[in-house]
Amino acid sequence: MAQKIRIAVTPGDGIGPEVVAEAVHCLEALRSRHNLPLEWTRFPWPSHAWHEENGESMPADALDQLQKYDAILLGALGDPGPVDDPDRYLLPDSISLAPLLDMRKGFDQWVCERPARLLPGARQYLADERAKDIDMLVIRENSEGEYVSQGGRLRKGTPDEVATQMEVFTRRATDRIIRYGFEQARLRAAARAEEGRTRHFKTLDGKICESQVCIVTKRNALRYWGDMYTEAFEEMSREYPDVATHHELVDAACMKFVQAPWAFDVVVASNLQGDILTDLAAVLSGGMGVAPSCNLNPDDPDMPSMFEPTHGSAPDIAGQGLADPTAMLFTTARMLDWLGRNDPAVAAAGRELFDAVAADLAENAGARRGTQEIGKAVRDRL
Amino acid sequence: MAQKIRIAVTPGDGIGPEVVAEAVHCLEALRSRHNLPLEWTRFPWPSHAWHEENGESMPADALDQLQKYDAILLGALGDPGPVDDPDRYLLPDSISLAPLLDMRKGFDQWVCERPARLLPGARQYLADERAKDIDMLVIRENSEGEYVSQGGRLRKGTPDEVATQMEVFTRRATDRIIRYGFEQARLRAAARAEEGRTRHFKTLDGKICESQVCIVTKRNALRYWGDMYTEAFEEMSREYPDVATHHELVDAACMKFVQAPWAFDVVVASNLQGDILTDLAAVLSGGMGVAPSCNLNPDDPDMPSMFEPTHGSAPDIAGQGLADPTAMLFTTARMLDWLGRNDPAVAAAGRELFDAVAADLAENAGARRGTQEIGKAVRDRL
Ligand SMILES: CC(C)[C@H](C(=O)O)[C@@H](O)C(=O)O
Ligand SMILES: CC(C)[C@H](C(=O)O)[C@@H](O)C(=O)O
Repeated sequence: MAQKIRIAVTPGDGIGPEVVAEAVHCLEALRSRHNLPLEWTRFPWPSHAWHEENGESMPADALDQLQKYDAILLGALGDPGPVDDPDRYLLPDSISLAPLLDMRKGFDQWVCERPARLLPGARQYLADERAKDIDMLVIRENSEGEYVSQGGRLRKGTPDEVATQMEVFTRRATDRIIRYGFEQARLRAAARAEEGRTRHFKTLDGKICESQVCIVTKRNALRYWGDMYTEAFEEMSREYPDVATHHELVDAACMKFVQAPWAFDVVVASNLQGDILTDLAAVLSGGMGVAPSCNLNPDDPDMPSMFEPTHGSAPDIAGQGLADPTAMLFTTARMLDWLGRNDPAVAAAGRELFDAVAADLAENAGARRGTQEIGKAVRDRL
Repeated sequence: MAQKIRIAVTPGDGIGPEVVAEAVHCLEALRSRHNLPLEWTRFPWPSHAWHEENGESMPADALDQLQKYDAILLGALGDPGPVDDPDRYLLPDSISLAPLLDMRKGFDQWVCERPARLLPGARQYLADERAKDIDMLVIRENSEGEYVSQGGRLRKGTPDEVATQMEVFTRRATDRIIRYGFEQARLRAAARAEEGRTRHFKTLDGKICESQVCIVTKRNALRYWGDMYTEAFEEMSREYPDVATHHELVDAACMKFVQAPWAFDVVVASNLQGDILTDLAAVLSGGMGVAPSCNLNPDDPDMPSMFEPTHGSAPDIAGQGLADPTAMLFTTARMLDWLGRNDPAVAAAGRELFDAVAADLAENAGARRGTQEIGKAVRDRL
């Protein structure tokens, strides 16, 4: 008997519960069909509890409760305002999003992985047809950097106020995220080779490689960690002579994401710059409706990883059965993939779910369908 | 006799001297035609002097020399690698770009203004036809924030290294850039009204305004200055009840720049976030070939402002007469506009040059033309 895999399901706010319901239905279907050793527990922790209970948006012992699980499947948190209606403006409810950062920090989920592929059926924002070839993996350092929350406000609220924010980067965390990037580049090249779709990347000295890692910094202005990142990257690249290396400044990277996103393979960036680049990559590969986000702790089996769609809780359409569960289902597929690292049947279920969601997307591009309708259509393909 | 206006022309590196030559020809044509009180001096300071002379890329007394002028017209600095050929990778030569930051700091050019309009003939990267309506002004805080260069590297080069980078924001600099944003919003609304093309922006409480300022922060993660920015913005907005206000997080802002850039009017952002947003706005409105950048000191007449195209020095095509001077000419037009604040004839020359460049762009979209050919075509329209 395979070891039980335990999932904590946290539906969250807004459309979270609706899209999570479809994810759970798919998990049920896959479990019974393939007899998978999966089980899950629901933690209905809507952020409004924040107002009523302990001044937080989760119970005080939330992390202790969650730590017993192998993965956390999160719906959506907070009220970030409507993404698709830029004419309607809401101030983002930043406070209710805090649990995201708490989980990342508390479980040392030091990798944030956001794959970006423009799948058939997904909305294409770029005019260039080559956008169809977008296939990159943005890897965001998720444990330190700009997000250490160090700093303060001196003479707060006066005309003489000074606000500081410290960025702290360690070589250890830099090395581990860069190594993770190189390893992913190799895995991606191997997977492509298996599917017979090799890609080519030129190195500075003209060599051709089948994968690439692009490191992003702003070393011409933020030079302390920019230089450390660059040195760490160059040193480690010697261990990966088969992987092409590339360097971009974050401003140029954003520009090139728009001009030629199909030229990127693996992109490694700091916490904040990765935050920006992954949102940009998400929209270029179809928008928030399809973008998964994985917060991983790859080396400590006692720490659960967390899987969430990149989209927000879309309070304006919550509870109406209108939300598209596609991103949530892609996220669930990615979670199975991860949980199946030592269990091929679980990993296979992840691929099956991914294929079903992708096929559904391709077939129904642009169709107006409700949350449950999409969920059922995907399930029917399993 | 009108007061003399003195311009320091610094062609810089790579394609800089070629595109600057066209700008100077246009200035000559405008001066003689309209008898403008303009004069200029050329400072041929290529960055390679950095290697040969004093270890800098400008003479040691460069700022003293430049300070005597009313404006600096800069070609391009450094070797940032080819923008349009993402298959060819160069490591950006960050060091030779230092004079940019030195001038901004030394002359307290605290506003960086980068208008983004998708003019007829400019390359359109977005699929949506509404991209033609992109018309925003991104205002970047240019004097502090992430660019203060404070920090260091502890245990440098060891596995235990810690790199820090401090972000410092003052309420004074925050207030002045936000006020500048509101003032520009009013000016833009007035200019549009004159041209009979009013735009409408909704406020949170449903009111309709003819202009908007969007403040960008990352207050849910970088909360010290994010909160200060937000408070300063909300306080100042009370003085501008006629201007709609909006708030975006920088990641969402990047996404919305791709999804609906035509919904923005004036955008105010910090030094780093503004750097990223302006590159993105530049590419969405046609790319580096057309994007001007203005580093302004609006309140100290003894401090020259600096005008540069956003593009780099493109060393791969330097010296071949291939570089497109369009961005440089738009930059020159913007400089005349600025220098003509108290001299209507100079401002009119700026508009004349802008119109000539825009007309040339619209008529010759996509045509293969050399640097001098484009320069002459524009001059022939003056
Ligand atoms: C909600 C916010 C703090 C978060 C982040 O900045 O990491 C979000 O933007 C994300 O990308 O997951
Ligand atoms: C060259 C570099 C330091 C500069 C900046 O970051 O400000 C550039 O990117 C710009 O936008 O003018």
